[in-house]
Amino acid sequence: MTDADAVKNAVYDVVVIGAGPVGENVADRTRAAGLSTAVVESELVGGECSYWACIPSKALLRPVVARADARRVPGLSAAVQGPLDTAAVLAHRDWYVSDWHDDGQVAWLEGVGADLYRGQGRLAGTKQVSVTTPDGTEHRLTARHAVAVCTGSRAVVPDLPGVADARPWTSREATSAKEVPGRLVIVGGGVVGVEMATVYQALGAQVTMLIRGDGLLPKMEPFAGELVAEALTEAGADIRTGVAATSVNRTAPDGPVTVELDNGERIEADEILFATGRAPRTDDLGLETVALKPGSWLPVDDSCRVEGSNWLYAVGDVNHRALLTHQGKYQARIAGAAIAARAQGAPEATGRWGAHTATADHAAVPQVVFTDPEAASVGLTLAGAERAGHRVRAVDYDLGAVSGSGLYASGYRGRARMVVDLDREILLGVTFVGPGIGELLHSATVAVAGEVPIDRLWHAVPSFPTISEVWLRLLETYRG
Amino acid sequence: MTDADAVKNAVYDVVVIGAGPVGENVADRTRAAGLSTAVVESELVGGECSYWACIPSKALLRPVVARADARRVPGLSAAVQGPLDTAAVLAHRDWYVSDWHDDGQVAWLEGVGADLYRGQGRLAGTKQVSVTTPDGTEHRLTARHAVAVCTGSRAVVPDLPGVADARPWTSREATSAKEVPGRLVIVGGGVVGVEMATVYQALGAQVTMLIRGDGLLPKMEPFAGELVAEALTEAGADIRTGVAATSVNRTAPDGPVTVELDNGERIEADEILFATGRAPRTDDLGLETVALKPGSWLPVDDSCRVEGSNWLYAVGDVNHRALLTHQGKYQARIAGAAIAARAQGAPEATGRWGAHTATADHAAVPQVVFTDPEAASVGLTLAGAERAGHRVRAVDYDLGAVSGSGLYASGYRGRARMVVDLDREILLGVTFVGPGIGELLHSATVAVAGEVPIDRLWHAVPSFPTISEVWLRLLETYRG
Repeated sequence: MTDADAVKNAVYDVVVIGAGPVGENVADRTRAAGLSTAVVESELVGGECSYWACIPSKALLRPVVARADARRVPGLSAAVQGPLDTAAVLAHRDWYVSDWHDDGQVAWLEGVGADLYRGQGRLAGTKQVSVTTPDGTEHRLTARHAVAVCTGSRAVVPDLPGVADARPWTSREATSAKEVPGRLVIVGGGVVGVEMATVYQALGAQVTMLIRGDGLLPKMEPFAGELVAEALTEAGADIRTGVAATSVNRTAPDGPVTVELDNGERIEADEILFATGRAPRTDDLGLETVALKPGSWLPVDDSCRVEGSNWLYAVGDVNHRALLTHQGKYQARIAGAAIAARAQGAPEATGRWGAHTATADHAAVPQVVFTDPEAASVGLTLAGAERAGHRVRAVDYDLGAVSGSGLYASGYRGRARMVVDLDREILLGVTFVGPGIGELLHSATVAVAGEVPIDRLWHAVPSFPTISEVWLRLLETYRG
Repeated sequence: MTDADAVKNAVYDVVVIGAGPVGENVADRTRAAGLSTAVVESELVGGECSYWACIPSKALLRPVVARADARRVPGLSAAVQGPLDTAAVLAHRDWYVSDWHDDGQVAWLEGVGADLYRGQGRLAGTKQVSVTTPDGTEHRLTARHAVAVCTGSRAVVPDLPGVADARPWTSREATSAKEVPGRLVIVGGGVVGVEMATVYQALGAQVTMLIRGDGLLPKMEPFAGELVAEALTEAGADIRTGVAATSVNRTAPDGPVTVELDNGERIEADEILFATGRAPRTDDLGLETVALKPGSWLPVDDSCRVEGSNWLYAVGDVNHRALLTHQGKYQARIAGAAIAARAQGAPEATGRWGAHTATADHAAVPQVVFTDPEAASVGLTLAGAERAGHRVRAVDYDLGAVSGSGLYASGYRGRARMVVDLDREILLGVTFVGPGIGELLHSATVAVAGEVPIDRLWHAVPSFPTISEVWLRLLETYRG
């Protein structure tokens, strides 16, 4: 017997809406502080990252990048000229997402002692959350101290003629596809666009990228997009810049999709992926019950508390500060600690770089794009630093001229840039583009977040012969 | 006509003995300061590192490590189960050492405006250096300001019965061999030993390692040697600990070599490599003319000036502070700047971490061992920190439990440790062991040399999903 009208009330110290990595980390922190915590999730515990973003995309990308790396090593390269084993790559991706089952993550959540409610969580006034679980029970959860909205973001598909019937891919379909289309059109040249172009071109698709602007990875230093575009083109992808799709048409359900461009051309493909940005998942969240606007990003202070509220937090993508899993998790650690401190009347550390102050998500955001070459950056670009009014100098170095780079890969191509704050003699941003630089980025993240003075970086000696020696070259170049 | 009795006198601001990377960097710095500089070299300009150490060893190791990495990637692994192309690997190594010709490096030296004298440089009293060049001319060089001894170190072969006739390999022969022996005995389990074991086992030799102590890589955290030994053993190497060679015998010039052990066993092999430490190259340097002992390491102050002298510098291996190319180059930058400042009467920056104070070569020495798995460390080990009297805590984390590690390699095995100074809340040392961590080390080097507080490292967010996320795990573990 189910009783659809059943209502159960429960009181927690903290209610978290959304059990992606961000919600999980908020709960982890509040539980660690001894606060009772409920977590509400409408899909899979583990969220976008675990099933339709970071994890599957990297599982798909790693074989591509590893093969590209191996192909540049004399004595090994001849063995890896053939295609990847697509079935094995997809099977490995399936394993990594646990075939889209969340048992492991549920167990983790139980392990930290949080209560999971499955269903769509909605605010129902101050400190109130309602959720109807699959058995039809409506739960009304009261939060003594805080509600944290961690619902993340979703892919935006532009409202073009024909798009609804064309079954377009977003990042979700691209990371969870069970087969490789023969021809794939990708609209957008940001991170999702270039990573999925890298995967599908390597797995045998003919990829065409449609870029509205003049290059790829527009948020990074210009050379990042240039080097990635060069490599994608060499791999066989067709990158078209300065064009936009104006309509999409799929006549037969199993037939091809035709894309019309604003330059009058038409492209026929088997699938079309829109990698055209993100929107907040706040439209069905009951925001109207607390005088906020459904569908909007939620502005927060540096503890991730929603502006004007003393109990509502918005953590991760949904606050629009930095749409990256690791930054959301960082905010979750900060917000979780702030919620706990406030609940317990403990002192707050709200100064810049304090324990309750998200600072890095403005000042030192790292990102690694797992393409071939890899592109990685932290902090401000030159243009960004200038826009922010800093007195800066950009120092560039050819990564291919570093001994460790050449030893890593024959014919190594890459570039590094550091943006120096000339007034404080610290780094505001660093960008590396080249094979094998993904793990090198964290050195820059420590330097930028640590505000380590240039004079001291001079004593941070890179081990020879690593690619890291580019640090020495950058510093030498700066010192002239 | 050659005139063996010809003597030519010349005066320079600075005379550098030894044109390895260290001598080159001293000259680069003194020339940049406008000081006239002579460089004396008895072998190849570019030194041990370029022809018989770092460069050829890494050229040999990279295919081995890249293959091991590729073998752990589903979808790619099947393609790389076969052997490496040994001829291609050796040919690439030959290309990287320019077939042991130094034209390129000579051109670089000329480019910075230093004068090269080929021959054995010897001190001949205060500020005097003599060198007889290949044409028989003796040059007497007077240094107005400084003589810098940068002659480095050589491999030590223990004085065992039969060793002289057995034509043993040292690191020179191991890095320059033209073919792969069928059976190779390696005496010693330090960096040279494990790197060459990795190369030759992968290129088809049957490697036997003889280790006097109880493990490999004894200067690193114990788990480094353990993980490398595990992998070498799985690759087929025979690692014997707690044993020493007592004699070596090669009867026929082209015959095998027999090694007797102190446990009574005998091993037959085709070559034997002694990787048993280094000695200073100071025996034929005229040290006796300036009241120093030939054959000794040269103690220096933190500007690399020989103790008791106001003009003689010893830079790099020869001063025994840190026997690594990158630390020698670091010292060269510091010493070159100090020589220039003193020559020009400029202020000296001799405080800790000052521009004229080698500090990192005691406090933050990084090293990457390019084995499979890679082993990398900077600063103090736990045992070293305790010996030095610090109040410390070691924090360990299983690198295989990091998302980025598993995505990098299936079945990832590795470990990380950070050694926290509990009084200052900074890091004294960090060790990473695992595939793909070579470039990650520099993040630790920046943290240790930069003395970045733990509280600030909390804001240095690793990009997801990289191996670098181990930083977050280490910090979480420390905070409990």
